Amino acid sequence: MPRSNHSLPMAQLPSPRGRSVQELWDNRTVKRTSLCPFQISTPALDQFPVKLWRKLESRHFEYGDPSNLTFGDPAGYLPLREAISEHLRMFRAMVCDASQILITSGSRQGMNLAAQVLLDPGENAWIEDPVSFDVFNIFKIAGALLVPVRVDEQGLDVPEGIALAPLARLAYVSPSQHYPLGMTLSLSRRLALLDWASRTNAWIIEDDLDCEYRYVGRSLPSLHSLDNHGRVIYVGTFSRAMFPGLRLGYIVVPKGLMGTFTAARHLLDIGSSLVSQKTMSDFITEGHFYRHLRRIRTVHAERRDIMVKAIRDALGHILTVQIPEAGLYALGLLKDGLNDVDIAKKAAKAGISLIALSPYYQCNPAKSGLIFGFAGFPGQSIQKGIRRLSKIQFEA
Amino acid sequence: MPRSNHSLPMAQLPSPRGRSVQELWDNRTVKRTSLCPFQISTPALDQFPVKLWRKLESRHFEYGDPSNLTFGDPAGYLPLREAISEHLRMFRAMVCDASQILITSGSRQGMNLAAQVLLDPGENAWIEDPVSFDVFNIFKIAGALLVPVRVDEQGLDVPEGIALAPLARLAYVSPSQHYPLGMTLSLSRRLALLDWASRTNAWIIEDDLDCEYRYVGRSLPSLHSLDNHGRVIYVGTFSRAMFPGLRLGYIVVPKGLMGTFTAARHLLDIGSSLVSQKTMSDFITEGHFYRHLRRIRTVHAERRDIMVKAIRDALGHILTVQIPEAGLYALGLLKDGLNDVDIAKKAAKAGISLIALSPYYQCNPAKSGLIFGFAGFPGQSIQKGIRRLSKIQFEA
Repeated sequence: MPRSNHSLPMAQLPSPRGRSVQELWDNRTVKRTSLCPFQISTPALDQFPVKLWRKLESRHFEYGDPSNLTFGDPAGYLPLREAISEHLRMFRAMVCDASQILITSGSRQGMNLAAQVLLDPGENAWIEDPVSFDVFNIFKIAGALLVPVRVDEQGLDVPEGIALAPLARLAYVSPSQHYPLGMTLSLSRRLALLDWASRTNAWIIEDDLDCEYRYVGRSLPSLHSLDNHGRVIYVGTFSRAMFPGLRLGYIVVPKGLMGTFTAARHLLDIGSSLVSQKTMSDFITEGHFYRHLRRIRTVHAERRDIMVKAIRDALGHILTVQIPEAGLYALGLLKDGLNDVDIAKKAAKAGISLIALSPYYQCNPAKSGLIFGFAGFPGQSIQKGIRRLSKIQFEA
Repeated sequence: MPRSNHSLPMAQLPSPRGRSVQELWDNRTVKRTSLCPFQISTPALDQFPVKLWRKLESRHFEYGDPSNLTFGDPAGYLPLREAISEHLRMFRAMVCDASQILITSGSRQGMNLAAQVLLDPGENAWIEDPVSFDVFNIFKIAGALLVPVRVDEQGLDVPEGIALAPLARLAYVSPSQHYPLGMTLSLSRRLALLDWASRTNAWIIEDDLDCEYRYVGRSLPSLHSLDNHGRVIYVGTFSRAMFPGLRLGYIVVPKGLMGTFTAARHLLDIGSSLVSQKTMSDFITEGHFYRHLRRIRTVHAERRDIMVKAIRDALGHILTVQIPEAGLYALGLLKDGLNDVDIAKKAAKAGISLIALSPYYQCNPAKSGLIFGFAGFPGQSIQKGIRRLSKIQFEA
């Protein structure tokens, strides 16, 4: 398989695994300690119906069979997988049955499984450029030779990917909403990507980030729903639709790979809590999931508006922010000459968690910007946080 | 680094990772679906104080801060790590502080982390022979060149390991109770192993399996407690001391490696549920953990006695079983000419889960035997299961 000559900023790491990868982990992992504004990936946890959840849980925990205290099938609890398959059919137009769905501990584990099972060391993998450190590291550690492919207003530039590494083994893409730039992969790009994958037998990892939280218009059909050749691995999670501590997610895999994915999950960490899986299954099938999503989507949209207004009012002279159409964060682009990494460091000292955009770029010209998670914080906290932020010294 | 010429039954697998490893996963992973007698690794779940657990959990879940719905520090919740450090000091004579303890989702994840962080592909790793499929696979998939080292009545034959692969990077050992043969690693072997590791800068993975369940005499000091050179990675779990669905375990690592292990855990699956960690912390510090272990140890010892008597009464003509001094399973050795794999298959058809001993052997002459988990099943279920088993046709 030909390898791309694309220069990689991390290429100084000689081996993708073992001790030589320590440096990569040490330097590039975001270490979270507690919830502080404006962390991303956090839904409105203050709105989660905890008592209802606990009541449903009691059926299987306090009053249930002691075998509920274990894990059961390493592929996951079948009725939950059936509920997810129905959910994906209704909301993402996906045709897949429970026998293709594997329960994971979240999208992070889903991507690690896909990288472990599908990649041999030294094979090329397209990643979006910019891309989060975590996605970068997951594929790097699996031994991939990473090929950063630029994103434009239509999302991943598929023709560029094909030009750089036509025979890559795998492409990572977040089509519903690119992280961190926020655009949606256009339909023509979706079709071009699927066409490339089916011609070359490449795999597509579809990270369907925040598909539950679209505030404007309708989502495009998922890549998985357009795929007639079984090339897409669909990665989903309940961390943001429910709560991160739940530790439940799922992947949808082509039927022929289900045995291998299941065995790999079993080998990694055996399986997920059966009580959590049974409770999640009830939460979906009894209608609570949709009610919760509907309610929380409204809450998120309100917080988004408060965030955008607060940024524009207090920081409009240095930040340009668009109203995000989906997801849990807003991206503000900094005016020329301002260094996002410096500002994020100063903000951290003031107790505000912001993510700097520019380090996410691998090869393409970096933009300077800041990422604000808005969903996890009530309006007043958002306004207070932005006020605090407006007092720091932005110029170097 | 010189490589052992020891022939490996799995050596036909050309590459340790990626798609070529599918066959290994497919063929050698035990797939569990539900709790049935006589599954191993299952404590007396019917005796777990579920209501107490749920009451403690409420403090952090129903009435707590919404940020409890997330994960917090990827190394784990500090008070839990402090409680574990105190527990290990008292019960395993270990000197380690919370800053060396990383919370995992169980011992399986702990071993995967150790294999990922400490091994480079192609390096030698000693494993015990016989060894469970899961341990075999974890180190195989990390890219190790496995060196099976025989066990005798003193446990791992350290001189043989040194003769076979003197410069191995790592040794896997279960010193408290070898799985599946049940012996304890002798003190002289412990010292020889530590001496070898400190001389060659090798790592020792101490899988302290079922150290909580010793029925006779006192445990020997853990390898970690005897280690003056920071060579031991200690792997522990709450799956058997509490319940498997809890998904909490821990590893104790040398101080200099803590950052890398933490980053690796964060990259694998972000972290463990904060509510579970806070509840476990309270469960230990308020004294419930010791009371529970004391009580359940008695229950397990009773079930062990019922199991051994039932096997001797009904199957004594074909199985020789010793009373296990520790742990959750009994090993029965089959009389000559009886095939353990065939019998385990027939038992499975009758709804009885038995593990055949002989496939666990890698290089050394295999014994034929069957492994009976006794702890998870009340006396009557044990007697009923053994009666059902006594009716199957044992001869081929």
